[in-house]
Amino acid sequence: MAKKGKTAITPTREQDYPEWYQQVIKAADLAEVSPVRGCMVIKPWGYAIWEQMQKTLDRMFKDTGHVNAYFPLFIPKSYLEKEAEHVEGFAKECAVVTHHRLEEGPDGGLVPAGELAEPLVVRPTSETIIGEVYAKWVQSYRDLPILINQWANVVRWEMRTRLFLRTAEFLWQEGHTVHATSEEAVEETLQMLDVYATFARETMAMPVIKGEKTPEERFPGAVDTYTIEAMMQDRKALQAGTSHFLGQNFARAANIQFLDQDNEQKLAWTTSWGVSTRLVGALIMTHSDDDGLVLPPKLAPSQVVIVPITRKEEEKAEVLEFCNSLLAELKDVRWGEERLRVSLDTRDLRSAEKNWDHIKKGVPLKLEVGPRDVKNGSVFMYRRDTKEKGGMPRAEFVSKVTDLLGEIQAGLLSRAEAFRDEHTHDFDDLEAFKAFFTAQNADKPEIHGGFARAYSVGGPEVVEMCKKLKVTARCIPLDAQDEPGTCLFTGKPAERKVIFAKSY
Amino acid sequence: MAKKGKTAITPTREQDYPEWYQQVIKAADLAEVSPVRGCMVIKPWGYAIWEQMQKTLDRMFKDTGHVNAYFPLFIPKSYLEKEAEHVEGFAKECAVVTHHRLEEGPDGGLVPAGELAEPLVVRPTSETIIGEVYAKWVQSYRDLPILINQWANVVRWEMRTRLFLRTAEFLWQEGHTVHATSEEAVEETLQMLDVYATFARETMAMPVIKGEKTPEERFPGAVDTYTIEAMMQDRKALQAGTSHFLGQNFARAANIQFLDQDNEQKLAWTTSWGVSTRLVGALIMTHSDDDGLVLPPKLAPSQVVIVPITRKEEEKAEVLEFCNSLLAELKDVRWGEERLRVSLDTRDLRSAEKNWDHIKKGVPLKLEVGPRDVKNGSVFMYRRDTKEKGGMPRAEFVSKVTDLLGEIQAGLLSRAEAFRDEHTHDFDDLEAFKAFFTAQNADKPEIHGGFARAYSVGGPEVVEMCKKLKVTARCIPLDAQDEPGTCLFTGKPAERKVIFAKSY
Repeated sequence: MAKKGKTAITPTREQDYPEWYQQVIKAADLAEVSPVRGCMVIKPWGYAIWEQMQKTLDRMFKDTGHVNAYFPLFIPKSYLEKEAEHVEGFAKECAVVTHHRLEEGPDGGLVPAGELAEPLVVRPTSETIIGEVYAKWVQSYRDLPILINQWANVVRWEMRTRLFLRTAEFLWQEGHTVHATSEEAVEETLQMLDVYATFARETMAMPVIKGEKTPEERFPGAVDTYTIEAMMQDRKALQAGTSHFLGQNFARAANIQFLDQDNEQKLAWTTSWGVSTRLVGALIMTHSDDDGLVLPPKLAPSQVVIVPITRKEEEKAEVLEFCNSLLAELKDVRWGEERLRVSLDTRDLRSAEKNWDHIKKGVPLKLEVGPRDVKNGSVFMYRRDTKEKGGMPRAEFVSKVTDLLGEIQAGLLSRAEAFRDEHTHDFDDLEAFKAFFTAQNADKPEIHGGFARAYSVGGPEVVEMCKKLKVTARCIPLDAQDEPGTCLFTGKPAERKVIFAKSY
Repeated sequence: MAKKGKTAITPTREQDYPEWYQQVIKAADLAEVSPVRGCMVIKPWGYAIWEQMQKTLDRMFKDTGHVNAYFPLFIPKSYLEKEAEHVEGFAKECAVVTHHRLEEGPDGGLVPAGELAEPLVVRPTSETIIGEVYAKWVQSYRDLPILINQWANVVRWEMRTRLFLRTAEFLWQEGHTVHATSEEAVEETLQMLDVYATFARETMAMPVIKGEKTPEERFPGAVDTYTIEAMMQDRKALQAGTSHFLGQNFARAANIQFLDQDNEQKLAWTTSWGVSTRLVGALIMTHSDDDGLVLPPKLAPSQVVIVPITRKEEEKAEVLEFCNSLLAELKDVRWGEERLRVSLDTRDLRSAEKNWDHIKKGVPLKLEVGPRDVKNGSVFMYRRDTKEKGGMPRAEFVSKVTDLLGEIQAGLLSRAEAFRDEHTHDFDDLEAFKAFFTAQNADKPEIHGGFARAYSVGGPEVVEMCKKLKVTARCIPLDAQDEPGTCLFTGKPAERKVIFAKSY
């Protein structure tokens, strides 16, 4: 649709990836920087994608036995202080409420008044406040497990923000569960990691690596942090979701105890797990191209859009009638358990403008309908992922629309998977590893940047060497079948390979 | 099920209505006071009811052309100050963020640090921050109308809190729309009032009176506030939702201007409208009885619960098999556009305990299934609203379950409506009006408390007289057909009757 070589997004990914990302968000009207420092406004199209994510995740949580609840936005400072590592991790970047009203100050303007006896922190995450509540709920083994999720906003006072990826306020879900045994808590932690990986793969069409975080990258206060890591199109890693086995750390801080079947008083075991609006950022960077957003059909707020094309006033009525009947017919089609999400664009805009708008917004299938189509009973289809286009009988489109959507969904996943695999390499030579992350390899210029798999013993020495390369250990993959080997960095014996990458 | 005269909730409504309310919430496990002052924890059963409300309302908003978006939690103090009445209304009760980190203080504990140049207020409502954003979005008449809703948490630092009815933090939705003309904005305001009234009536089975607020009761900064008012079982009024025509007040404060079709630059017209988790409180107080919560089927997270009754271990398997097949059969039944919400209670508890639990939680239909039922292919049904119970063939129950639910839904509405009408009276005598709100009427002891309809000119004099009776003007009903008359309080000519009541 664009002139050959012209793209809807300037700059292209090749030219300036970070700026391309911002421009895709702008072109697709997903979100914008708000007048409040570090906070974003999630615009309707961006929010609708988040709603689709929520709907699917919420069903998956409920299918695995979880229920939703809601806990306070504020955390008393003293709660945060109960878990030493936790407060260390979050104290540096939290919004602190110190007063409960505004009153007229000496110079006429309003000033904070009614100072609180104890400052309240706007939740950066809710382990501590929920722990306090759970301590009251849990008395006996009969009260366990507690399997609760919360959809909420959280605030972490980030200094350098980026829409969806890192903002002061963001939306997320946080699961918080309590168990009688360590085994059960670990099982829950891994189950939820699986839920996230399945969601990423099947709904977002985003392949992820499930793995364990190295100690340095753990959630503050966790015993083990598990993660799903995805590769973006600039070959950087993005941590897309985490699931934490918290051991008894938070149970101890909040005193979550229960009388067990053996009549002994025991400390409980807890987990927490979360994904956030960051997933929208991950989605953008996994599939989008130089014409804007590309949406996997399962998450597209509109899976098919119909654009009526008329030049003369007298053509309008019949074209619109055809479009409306097509809209009704398509809305009635079931795809999986749901009906298709179809829209008709009747805005008072030029057709070219509408067409580009839907391309930039990533609608999977676009149909143009003009007077000739009405006469022939046909539609002119544009497929967002492959940019293929062409006319076909209306009935043919209706009969194969769900197959097409399935094909697009699967195609996006395999494209992303191929890209990820192409840019994942094993290293047993430190210089090659360094070259991978710094400059082109003279011999193999195509091997540059991505996921580097290498044996590592971890620890400060490795962290330090990686830091110089602006690289971090992303995770120790759970399903790797590696035999023990030699640490790339220290030459010591190492048990497993670790994935290293630059990251968001 | 209880011994005659014994109720599950102590005290009864008659004995102590406010305490009964708290005890119903506790017995149904809906919510509790949190360790954070004024904030509540919404427990899973209470949250599930809110989710049902959200689902229906969200669909109604979308069906009327609205989309969801998300705006920042924080409002810079200067924004709040731009609309004089608005800041006056909210400054006295807002959480103020003054710092963005905690650091070690002189005595070792953490103290607020990183003072903000400008304090941020946690949104008590979002007109001002959303107005600032809209001002950038709106350039031309083509950008209008903007029809956006937000699901969010808000904070108003209430000193005297009550679960669901008045808490420092609560969940709500707030619609914020922008229009080119006053007429269109008024139409939107009234449309959303209708949506709320329809939802209250058809989904909550709660009859409401749609009306206009008197000037004293308006939202701070609004030109007109419309309300839906419901009568609780203690005959007090509860404001269940409001829709505000904001005129150009907020558009002026944020400078929302547009170039109109006539090529003139104009100030826009805005509206806002909201309902909150307060609706859960309204629901409780409209339908519940001395055995606990009574849920209208359309909002019940579980519409039918199956309780297996077994005394001997060897009976368990066949009873459970029967229950599971019944569960599957019922889950497949459609009621309206959705499938039935059915649950099976397999908890390791005594049957009596389970039975009472579901009664207190308000599940509309409860089925007990014992070995004899399995043999006979029958179920033993308990109907929460009427407390009727009895056995019937399983097939009969399955075939009439949706009729039963419809009957319960309709029955709750007509019961509430009859109650409301019974306690609504017209007054043209001031002494009778006073007696209505203070002591028993000697002549007619049944006429005491409720909605009092009376002619009123309003204004400070009327407000003052009512204040002594702890009564407020609830609204000027929209659909009243009253001829002009004489003000009950001042004797002056009055155009319309106003509804007065004690209120939450």
